[in-house]
Amino acid sequence: MPLSPDQAAEITAQRAQTTPTRRVTSPGMEERLYTAHPVLDHGFVRVIDYMGDDAAICQAARVSYGKGTKSVSNDEGLIRYLMRHWHSTPFEMCEIKLHVKLPVFVARQWIRHRTANVNEYSARYSILDREFYIPAPDALAAQSTVNNQGRGELLEGEEAARVLEMLKSDAMRAYDHYEAMLSTEGQKGLARELARMNLPANIYTQWYWKVDLHNLFHFLRLRADVHAQYEIRVYAETICEIVADWVPAAFKAFEDYRMGGVNLSATALDCIRRMLKGEEVTQENSGMSKGEWREFEGVLGG
Amino acid sequence: MPLSPDQAAEITAQRAQTTPTRRVTSPGMEERLYTAHPVLDHGFVRVIDYMGDDAAICQAARVSYGKGTKSVSNDEGLIRYLMRHWHSTPFEMCEIKLHVKLPVFVARQWIRHRTANVNEYSARYSILDREFYIPAPDALAAQSTVNNQGRGELLEGEEAARVLEMLKSDAMRAYDHYEAMLSTEGQKGLARELARMNLPANIYTQWYWKVDLHNLFHFLRLRADVHAQYEIRVYAETICEIVADWVPAAFKAFEDYRMGGVNLSATALDCIRRMLKGEEVTQENSGMSKGEWREFEGVLGG
Amino acid sequence: MPLSPDQAAEITAQRAQTTPTRRVTSPGMEERLYTAHPVLDHGFVRVIDYMGDDAAICQAARVSYGKGTKSVSNDEGLIRYLMRHWHSTPFEMCEIKLHVKLPVFVARQWIRHRTANVNEYSARYSILDREFYIPAPDALAAQSTVNNQGRGELLEGEEAARVLEMLKSDAMRAYDHYEAMLSTEGQKGLARELARMNLPANIYTQWYWKVDLHNLFHFLRLRADVHAQYEIRVYAETICEIVADWVPAAFKAFEDYRMGGVNLSATALDCIRRMLKGEEVTQENSGMSKGEWREFEGVLGG
Amino acid sequence: MPLSPDQAAEITAQRAQTTPTRRVTSPGMEERLYTAHPVLDHGFVRVIDYMGDDAAICQAARVSYGKGTKSVSNDEGLIRYLMRHWHSTPFEMCEIKLHVKLPVFVARQWIRHRTANVNEYSARYSILDREFYIPAPDALAAQSTVNNQGRGELLEGEEAARVLEMLKSDAMRAYDHYEAMLSTEGQKGLARELARMNLPANIYTQWYWKVDLHNLFHFLRLRADVHAQYEIRVYAETICEIVADWVPAAFKAFEDYRMGGVNLSATALDCIRRMLKGEEVTQENSGMSKGEWREFEGVLGG
Repeated sequence: MPLSPDQAAEITAQRAQTTPTRRVTSPGMEERLYTAHPVLDHGFVRVIDYMGDDAAICQAARVSYGKGTKSVSNDEGLIRYLMRHWHSTPFEMCEIKLHVKLPVFVARQWIRHRTANVNEYSARYSILDREFYIPAPDALAAQSTVNNQGRGELLEGEEAARVLEMLKSDAMRAYDHYEAMLSTEGQKGLARELARMNLPANIYTQWYWKVDLHNLFHFLRLRADVHAQYEIRVYAETICEIVADWVPAAFKAFEDYRMGGVNLSATALDCIRRMLKGEEVTQENSGMSKGEWREFEGVLGG
Repeated sequence: MPLSPDQAAEITAQRAQTTPTRRVTSPGMEERLYTAHPVLDHGFVRVIDYMGDDAAICQAARVSYGKGTKSVSNDEGLIRYLMRHWHSTPFEMCEIKLHVKLPVFVARQWIRHRTANVNEYSARYSILDREFYIPAPDALAAQSTVNNQGRGELLEGEEAARVLEMLKSDAMRAYDHYEAMLSTEGQKGLARELARMNLPANIYTQWYWKVDLHNLFHFLRLRADVHAQYEIRVYAETICEIVADWVPAAFKAFEDYRMGGVNLSATALDCIRRMLKGEEVTQENSGMSKGEWREFEGVLGG
Repeated sequence: MPLSPDQAAEITAQRAQTTPTRRVTSPGMEERLYTAHPVLDHGFVRVIDYMGDDAAICQAARVSYGKGTKSVSNDEGLIRYLMRHWHSTPFEMCEIKLHVKLPVFVARQWIRHRTANVNEYSARYSILDREFYIPAPDALAAQSTVNNQGRGELLEGEEAARVLEMLKSDAMRAYDHYEAMLSTEGQKGLARELARMNLPANIYTQWYWKVDLHNLFHFLRLRADVHAQYEIRVYAETICEIVADWVPAAFKAFEDYRMGGVNLSATALDCIRRMLKGEEVTQENSGMSKGEWREFEGVLGG
Repeated sequence: MPLSPDQAAEITAQRAQTTPTRRVTSPGMEERLYTAHPVLDHGFVRVIDYMGDDAAICQAARVSYGKGTKSVSNDEGLIRYLMRHWHSTPFEMCEIKLHVKLPVFVARQWIRHRTANVNEYSARYSILDREFYIPAPDALAAQSTVNNQGRGELLEGEEAARVLEMLKSDAMRAYDHYEAMLSTEGQKGLARELARMNLPANIYTQWYWKVDLHNLFHFLRLRADVHAQYEIRVYAETICEIVADWVPAAFKAFEDYRMGGVNLSATALDCIRRMLKGEEVTQENSGMSKGEWREFEGVLGG
């Protein structure tokens, strides 16, 4: 359970308040606001604020004076057109602010997406909590034998037990020593900015993360993908559910053109044209490498 | 008068609607929403949406669970501290979306600030209106004799009249020809994307512009400055008034540390220390060039 | 002819000098350096500097200590893999700096690509030259009847003559008045920052533009595309030729995966799978709108 | 000693090669290229590539055709003017690419500077080395008693010994277990992307980092500052020495206006004016808070 009673009470209090606003509101998002959506064993994603909705995307695309919407179906068509033709600036007109609690090694992947605003909890200034990510049994996988940066089959039995024991005991010992170094009882106490270096990468941190919808879609395409590491993918999937409630038309277009879509090379496109004309196309006469052909077969096989 | 009756009606309708929201609201900004604040002869600035308030800055700085505010005075102190020490990320947690109508030559300066989102009215797709910026008499100035990129004294009498006549007649003729080239009566009609090239830089364009508060402050510091060109400065000044209503504490800190503050070089600081010790410091013994010394005297003289 | 004799001499002098360097060099790019590649009637593209080559992309991807290359064929395979899987950061490790002379209305499209560094010739500070883009007969096209932001058939005969006459005479008159307003003979002379507003959008400006290879590819994909306006496309095509000489392997991968590649939606991919199984797929049973189906047929027809 | 014999040999080989180039070169930087400048116990900074020099800054500011320099003294004056008046775009025309080896907790601070290009060694794909930062005795400090995010006096005697012992033994145990989890002898072997979570934040990572000079100066101003954490400051100081050799005039201006300069609020400036007129100004009548006054006294006292 990721929240203390005080934190849960603060969230409840905040959800209880409403104020009238002249701004556009998204009913699906209002329902989500402030709630901690749990991810992994101690993490969460909370929506703190948002700007815009589906209509606001169209309004910006049209640079209009009023609401800018003629009808919902017009808006959906326009949104699909914008997504299909990579007109990204109207999607940048929506913005979301999240409060995320996540393991440090996930945060390190996440931060590589630079076009966002971040305020992270400071371990120079504050003391981190004793909370570590320990994988559930169905996430404890071996190194992939076909992919240098992926996972293969699950660990089992004694091996799984050994791994969990190491992760847990090392985390606890590291945190005990973190506290021992910081302590000012009978000693000076090490500076926080130094003591934190003893903590492993599965400790939880948290941040406020603010991003526009276009850049969020880019993040989600990469991180909700099957090739993304499981521990960041579950955050991306939770955010996908939130975005589907926030801007339903934009999210549907994103699913069709980006998440479910594919990028074909000129070579691959040529192979499809040849196949549609009845030609027998094989890896040998395709112009693709073996690796590329395997990926191509995956695309066609679905 | 920059708005057509239809546009004015759309704005009135939009201002009349309110919806309850769980998000933080800024009362001063709600009052501003959608209204067209006039700038120059045909331009305006309209707030379309905003995210956050003074408390949201502090909430992000503290990475807090609830509202994150202890008291308004605590928040003000924290905001001043953040501004003084260049902790810019909490200010990035506020966002504003504006609809701006502005002459093209102003738009060209404005767009140099890259960390923002923009959707501009497309003259490839649409036909621009017959609206041109013609300077008021008190803005019609000669080239500065001391500054290569500024203005000096006002033009007067016949010279002023000649200039205005040229600006007006060239604008009208250019627009007449724009229409003549586009016309499909008795001819094919030139493509819009080509015809627009005949229009001068004082024609009005419009865009949606979205930016976070930190980057907006950076824009305002440069563009509300006395050295900025008058025609962009009046936009910046209008936005300053809006921001003062939106995030009063942050704007006050911005005024004190940025707009009214100065940046002193190590050399200039050393001169001040010497002066405070009673030493006679002149340009010759200051270590500064003549130009720099003149600016330094301006700072001390106030 | 875009260059004055002085400018041409400066370029020749600069090309004549070489210095030894320990940095990686690209022979194809050294050949291009400083030369003004002509574009449109008065424009050009000049390479001022570059950083990196194909091997540098691989070296960064491998975070290696030395040159990081095993063999050219290994590098090509790695570059194709990186491009196919959207690993964009290694391409960001190459950088190019261009000097470009271009009409203002082209500059206004170009600047929408924000992830680049720009220094533009200042018309606040300096006086612009009397150089305007006047379309060649084969670029003088009517508004498209099927596409709201494109061109259709060529203008002919009297209509073409009328358009050219208007563009030329308006440009000359605007420039005459620009000079008349600036003149200090017998009058004060209008400030440059004001006088420039009388100049039409086909006047030439120039800038230094610096961008990394990943963002340059993004620019080229959009602006060397058949849907881009002709007047920016010719700049993009010239840059494509330069990049092909600079980083041949990366450019080939870019051509295959981006320029010649396509992005298929989940719906379109499903249609292809059905067609490959022998099913008769029509717009009606495709799940696509008419516009989308037309684009899809274009992709398959090639 | 941070380099293996193979790595040292690769670097020596690379330094031995030169090629003629038409590009501008910086002699001071050529001397630095590829050498590993040691930082902390196992870290380093290596220059991999650079673009531009002092003259290139001026050339871009002038948008010139040739070298753009009249004389070195003119260039110095222009560079000081640009720095003083926050004309940042000419400085963006220089670029540097570094290879940096650094502890993970330093990397986490560093990456907060978003306007840069990064390729980090991947612990999903590769296995990290057994190298950890262990502070030298003169870096082992207590928490500051006056500053919530700084260090105070040095730890001594037994306390220092205890801390070092904990850091060392936890690092070794964590790495032993990392290897044990990865091992495929008699077991499947945990995926690398999971095993890495057991490693503490003082393990070393490495990356290629590329940034323009303007953004590098911003980084250096914050990270070479006395308030920066020691462990990142030593990297910033090493980079300062490199930049001083690369663009001597720009670095001197940076030192005078940024590193050694101060930012005074309107209130502080008013106090100085009053003091120069002979008025007795105290915290009570200054308009500043106690904390601000203390900082102000520090500025004046020097």
